[in-house]
Amino acid sequence: MSPFDHLHLEIPTSDKPRLVIIGGGFAGIQLVKSLKNSNYQIVLLDRHNYHTFQPLLYQVATAGLEPDSIAGALRQLFEKHKDFYFRMARVTGIDPEKKCIKTLVGELSYDLLVIANGSKTNYFGDQQMYDRTFPMKQVPQALNLRSHLLQNFEQTVLAKDDEEKDRLTNFVIVGGGPTGVEVAGALGELKKHVLPKDYPDINFDIMKLHLVDAGPRLLAGMSEKSSQKAEKYLKEFDIDVRVKTMLKSYDGRDVVLSDGTQIPAKTVIWAAGVTGNIVDGLPKESLKGGRIAVDSFNKVEGVKDIYALGDIAGMYSEAFPKGHPMVAPVAIQQATNLAKNLKRKSQADWKPFQYKDKGSMATVGRNKAVVDLPKFHFGGLFAWMVWMFVHLMSIVGFRNRLVILTNWIWNYMTYDRGTRLIIRTFLRNKNYKPGDTL
Amino acid sequence: MSPFDHLHLEIPTSDKPRLVIIGGGFAGIQLVKSLKNSNYQIVLLDRHNYHTFQPLLYQVATAGLEPDSIAGALRQLFEKHKDFYFRMARVTGIDPEKKCIKTLVGELSYDLLVIANGSKTNYFGDQQMYDRTFPMKQVPQALNLRSHLLQNFEQTVLAKDDEEKDRLTNFVIVGGGPTGVEVAGALGELKKHVLPKDYPDINFDIMKLHLVDAGPRLLAGMSEKSSQKAEKYLKEFDIDVRVKTMLKSYDGRDVVLSDGTQIPAKTVIWAAGVTGNIVDGLPKESLKGGRIAVDSFNKVEGVKDIYALGDIAGMYSEAFPKGHPMVAPVAIQQATNLAKNLKRKSQADWKPFQYKDKGSMATVGRNKAVVDLPKFHFGGLFAWMVWMFVHLMSIVGFRNRLVILTNWIWNYMTYDRGTRLIIRTFLRNKNYKPGDTL
Repeated sequence: MSPFDHLHLEIPTSDKPRLVIIGGGFAGIQLVKSLKNSNYQIVLLDRHNYHTFQPLLYQVATAGLEPDSIAGALRQLFEKHKDFYFRMARVTGIDPEKKCIKTLVGELSYDLLVIANGSKTNYFGDQQMYDRTFPMKQVPQALNLRSHLLQNFEQTVLAKDDEEKDRLTNFVIVGGGPTGVEVAGALGELKKHVLPKDYPDINFDIMKLHLVDAGPRLLAGMSEKSSQKAEKYLKEFDIDVRVKTMLKSYDGRDVVLSDGTQIPAKTVIWAAGVTGNIVDGLPKESLKGGRIAVDSFNKVEGVKDIYALGDIAGMYSEAFPKGHPMVAPVAIQQATNLAKNLKRKSQADWKPFQYKDKGSMATVGRNKAVVDLPKFHFGGLFAWMVWMFVHLMSIVGFRNRLVILTNWIWNYMTYDRGTRLIIRTFLRNKNYKPGDTL
Repeated sequence: MSPFDHLHLEIPTSDKPRLVIIGGGFAGIQLVKSLKNSNYQIVLLDRHNYHTFQPLLYQVATAGLEPDSIAGALRQLFEKHKDFYFRMARVTGIDPEKKCIKTLVGELSYDLLVIANGSKTNYFGDQQMYDRTFPMKQVPQALNLRSHLLQNFEQTVLAKDDEEKDRLTNFVIVGGGPTGVEVAGALGELKKHVLPKDYPDINFDIMKLHLVDAGPRLLAGMSEKSSQKAEKYLKEFDIDVRVKTMLKSYDGRDVVLSDGTQIPAKTVIWAAGVTGNIVDGLPKESLKGGRIAVDSFNKVEGVKDIYALGDIAGMYSEAFPKGHPMVAPVAIQQATNLAKNLKRKSQADWKPFQYKDKGSMATVGRNKAVVDLPKFHFGGLFAWMVWMFVHLMSIVGFRNRLVILTNWIWNYMTYDRGTRLIIRTFLRNKNYKPGDTL
């Protein structure tokens, strides 16, 4: 007997063809928006009832923002759409023959299916790392990391010996892409400006931040110049940056790097890579390189009437031998392009997807960033303002601008807010063992 | 081997006498504020790292506000105090002879001790109710209830039969004091204005709210007139109000009331009473009526150098045969009075505590409230504006006024925010069983 026996997935039939979208991320949301009141019945499924603005998740993890600033409840986004249905459901498989999807709460048939369920943290098959490190792809994960960080500091105040204090205040971040760099910068910011005021009993010289990356430079997807600038800004926070370095082992207490260094650390943040969230049921020929293989129209290879967008979609070409970068602008542009195609009368009029790289950015701490635009790149305070502006314009699209803008800028500039709440404390559970997930 | 072996509670010695305060609630915080830079070393202990503004906790539970709006990180409040120490610790006992307190992370000696750790939910010894109902005294509890409520609605969309839909949308609130009335009003508000937009698939006529109280009227601590007005406002939300009624039994699926009525309900909210958070170690003569007995100077009976403030303190007199009401103004006034006394040179100059009842209020839904002032009482929209003003003035005392004020008023008026996030979803755990705590 399934725990969900009393539930079923039932959508009223319509005279319009039913388009089912798996995933309320950037691609899924853009697709729904672009198909508003079109000639499709649209069903959006997501295992959460909200959309996560992932670029700012690291701020939730480092106690800079509360989840509600960066998450949007999916039901609220599409209140005014006709013949649109949102269902909170976890998809467990696809049946391309029967043209239906399977979820934990029942099956649903489709006329067209769009898979846009994104990517997940890639542990490269290492179970140790899966068990002991902190990922940062979801709101609950970011909150868990935040609780852990803050509790480490509370324990540092109470710690008896210096070795324990080191272990509690050493942080190892694995992965020098934008996520790793931004987390490192945010932690550097906390160490320099915020924590000494909160914890006058701790000498924060003992707090050490380490950022390691297996490749030859940080921010491999950006320009050399931005790479170098980012490394420079991180070193201004006393962050120990090691490229061409990997984690050899981690037992929950001590990290051993590939260069032999041993670092006592209770916190290892895993930002080392992502891989597609492959759903069961697609044939082998539809999968490639950890993603779902699509043609230049985002149509999935090897099956009928199924499309894939965003991180999950691998559109392989000479220009992009590994597929497009797994970033939000790709997801949004692919969704926009597919929506336009779906609204065209004839398949012959469809246009292939052409990625317009409008640039990329990464922030380092509170007031520095690196920005690559198609024609030039720059760094520093101005770059940070550009970064903040672009993100704000993206977020506030779905909330009242005045409130969130005021709220976010103020809090971001002053850190003066109550986001440093430890919701689940290590003291609640008298049976707590160090290392327990709280 | 204790899980906290690597931790200890150590405060630098000072030439000033050490005053230890247990509890960062209204009383504890007011005492610290009033003793700023006085002739005491002050150590504040709390099992959480934040203060909860409890009067608005029901809004977190009903998805109206996020926790950070109503919780203040305790470290930030007292940054500028000298010889002040905050320690996150759970107190497990007191030793009045040795003049020290025991915590999960070590012992601490005191010269003066102030117990201000408040009250806890009172289940009147009923284990069934403890296991199966939702309390609302802490932020984690409010968030748990919120998750539960929202998931009930998601499940209602997916539910197969009508009986299940009823069970998911029936809510029974036990306790007709301000907490119960305010939760009922907030749920009524959701049913009328918010949920139908979010869940167009659900016919909210099936959603039934029940509020039961064992006594003869709601809001027993307020005037008869306010009682009647509150009942009237609740009935405008179609809330089934039953006084002189108790819960006879609840098995997690069906409620049976003392009048025989059976209500299928997955949600029972327990707001039926509170009792003091008694700490181990005080002699029998110090305890009375579920609280710590104190004289008119808030000094604990039967021990030396220990005081108690707020909900936990039972100051029994002819005027207050059951002690003072367990409300914030009492806690704040007692703390202010004790601080003044502690700063006086001679014990002979101490003044006894005199409670100034400035009135009480309870809100019912988004724009109605009942207010009792010493000389008169009123209800309706104006009362609600008074209610909101008073609460805002109390909160914003510890945050930037502009940000929180804007944020809170806007969100409260429009419900336009992302607080309807289900952080821990019933779909994450494939082994989930209905009734599992998520």
